[in-house]
Amino acid sequence: MSISGLPVLNDILLAHKRISPYIHHSPVMTSSGINEMLGAEFYFKCENLQKVGAFKFRGATNAVLSLTPEELRHGVGTHSSGNHAAALALAARNAGVPAYIVMPSTAPAIKKAAVASYGGIITYCEPTQAARESTMDRIQKETGCTFIHPYNRFEIIAGQGTAALELLDSCPQLDAVMAPVGGGGLLSGTAIAAKSINPDISVWAGEPANADDAFRSMQFGSIQPALPSNTIADGLLTSLGTLTYEAIRSHVDCIMLCPESFILEAMKLIWERMKIIIEPSSAVPLGALMANPGLGWKGKKIGIILSGGNCKLELA
Amino acid sequence: MSISGLPVLNDILLAHKRISPYIHHSPVMTSSGINEMLGAEFYFKCENLQKVGAFKFRGATNAVLSLTPEELRHGVGTHSSGNHAAALALAARNAGVPAYIVMPSTAPAIKKAAVASYGGIITYCEPTQAARESTMDRIQKETGCTFIHPYNRFEIIAGQGTAALELLDSCPQLDAVMAPVGGGGLLSGTAIAAKSINPDISVWAGEPANADDAFRSMQFGSIQPALPSNTIADGLLTSLGTLTYEAIRSHVDCIMLCPESFILEAMKLIWERMKIIIEPSSAVPLGALMANPGLGWKGKKIGIILSGGNCKLELA
Repeated sequence: MSISGLPVLNDILLAHKRISPYIHHSPVMTSSGINEMLGAEFYFKCENLQKVGAFKFRGATNAVLSLTPEELRHGVGTHSSGNHAAALALAARNAGVPAYIVMPSTAPAIKKAAVASYGGIITYCEPTQAARESTMDRIQKETGCTFIHPYNRFEIIAGQGTAALELLDSCPQLDAVMAPVGGGGLLSGTAIAAKSINPDISVWAGEPANADDAFRSMQFGSIQPALPSNTIADGLLTSLGTLTYEAIRSHVDCIMLCPESFILEAMKLIWERMKIIIEPSSAVPLGALMANPGLGWKGKKIGIILSGGNCKLELA
Repeated sequence: MSISGLPVLNDILLAHKRISPYIHHSPVMTSSGINEMLGAEFYFKCENLQKVGAFKFRGATNAVLSLTPEELRHGVGTHSSGNHAAALALAARNAGVPAYIVMPSTAPAIKKAAVASYGGIITYCEPTQAARESTMDRIQKETGCTFIHPYNRFEIIAGQGTAALELLDSCPQLDAVMAPVGGGGLLSGTAIAAKSINPDISVWAGEPANADDAFRSMQFGSIQPALPSNTIADGLLTSLGTLTYEAIRSHVDCIMLCPESFILEAMKLIWERMKIIIEPSSAVPLGALMANPGLGWKGKKIGIILSGGNCKLELA
């Protein structure tokens, strides 16, 4: 563990070894159509094809497998209604221990069903942050479970960094890697891995213009809270944490903002051209590039982490 | 070339060598969720991720690259409004020769755009079979191009067989392989490849119950015409050809019929669980299994060729 509480490359390598038997080593896909259209060479790391449909399974698995036997025995918990909750539920089930998930009673049925299908033990609470935290506190006291924060945790950041590790292993020629930023777990792990492997590589982030707290945090030089916002990229609404703020400040070259219309355009482009399903949050990096053609990326080899594929589908 | 005009394994191996620099070696994907739900082990060969979004690019590329230099110089042609037309257009462009595509004026704008985007030279005709054929005849006389039938052609069948070749190379343990059947090019190539590599393997087909002409052809012992039909699997409307009838009669163990509701259910399952986009025709094999739980496939290792991913998407 490094002094600042952030993982270093070796921690990410160890995490990769630890989680390898459980994760999909997701494919890297290319599209000559998209390359021609946008004038760069893209390498898409398909974490939408990861188990549970998101990179979150990497960090959650690493966090669970890093517990002591005594901790592990009492299980894990989190308050989340998104991919982290489902990922933690499956990671815990794989380890044979309970996962206690606190969800607001107002969470969409599809998310409740996902967590339940992976064996998560759900407790519903009022849809406020205070209710989530007090409910989680009570369950921790009752069960002795370990709270696993969705992004501001050493083992989570190390686990998320393993996606970039695999990407750079397949594509060492990249000029830049790019990830979306919400709470910053994926971006932090990506940045630490990429800059450690290749100090000359650029690390960029895409953030919804309508939820630009990470961008503002870098501008102001301190963590800015996420404001109530309206974006289709519902995985990117949270503020940075103390650890992820530090990692991004130290290792990320540029956060590019993506207007809503470009999120949709990039998502459509990937669905149509690559025949894979990505959730809106995953489209934010490509959309941010499309919205910012002057930011020096044309003609470059760019790795993009497609973070997840969980969206509601409406088929006739 | 074998006596009956059908390719043998060696022709498929040669085709694979010929087309390898041009095609994607598409991934084989698995889903533990689908396996658990249905009680078998599935290995999905993702030709929806093939160039042009369909296996058709394999056969078209093999057909183009098998022409003599003199033939090649005059280009190729076909009358089709589907994936074969787009595939032939790109295969011809890769070889630097023209592709003359005859399409009914009523073809959907999206299909016209796809063919045009790959550089196909489109001639529109009245939406009748007679008009298609007479228009194609005229263009052949004018240009000297070679007509490439979408499925009833030696090189097309050999090319389509390369998908099963790759699948069995990755997954030699399969008990069965399965493909959808329309005109029968993919199924014929799949069956010849699979039975030649492993005589003990089962080869099954899925066909829409609403367009069951291949099923009826096997029952009657002669090619039955496709009747006007109503199925969402719009890639599977054509009748068998003389070559594909012979290949299927000799090498396919069972054609399973799939009701419309199961096509939709299987498509939804693959979209949701595997996060990939498949067109309805691709869902027919899995749907046919789901509709016929008593046909002896439970507990088996089954390879399924997902034939394509070209469907109209409606994103908000």
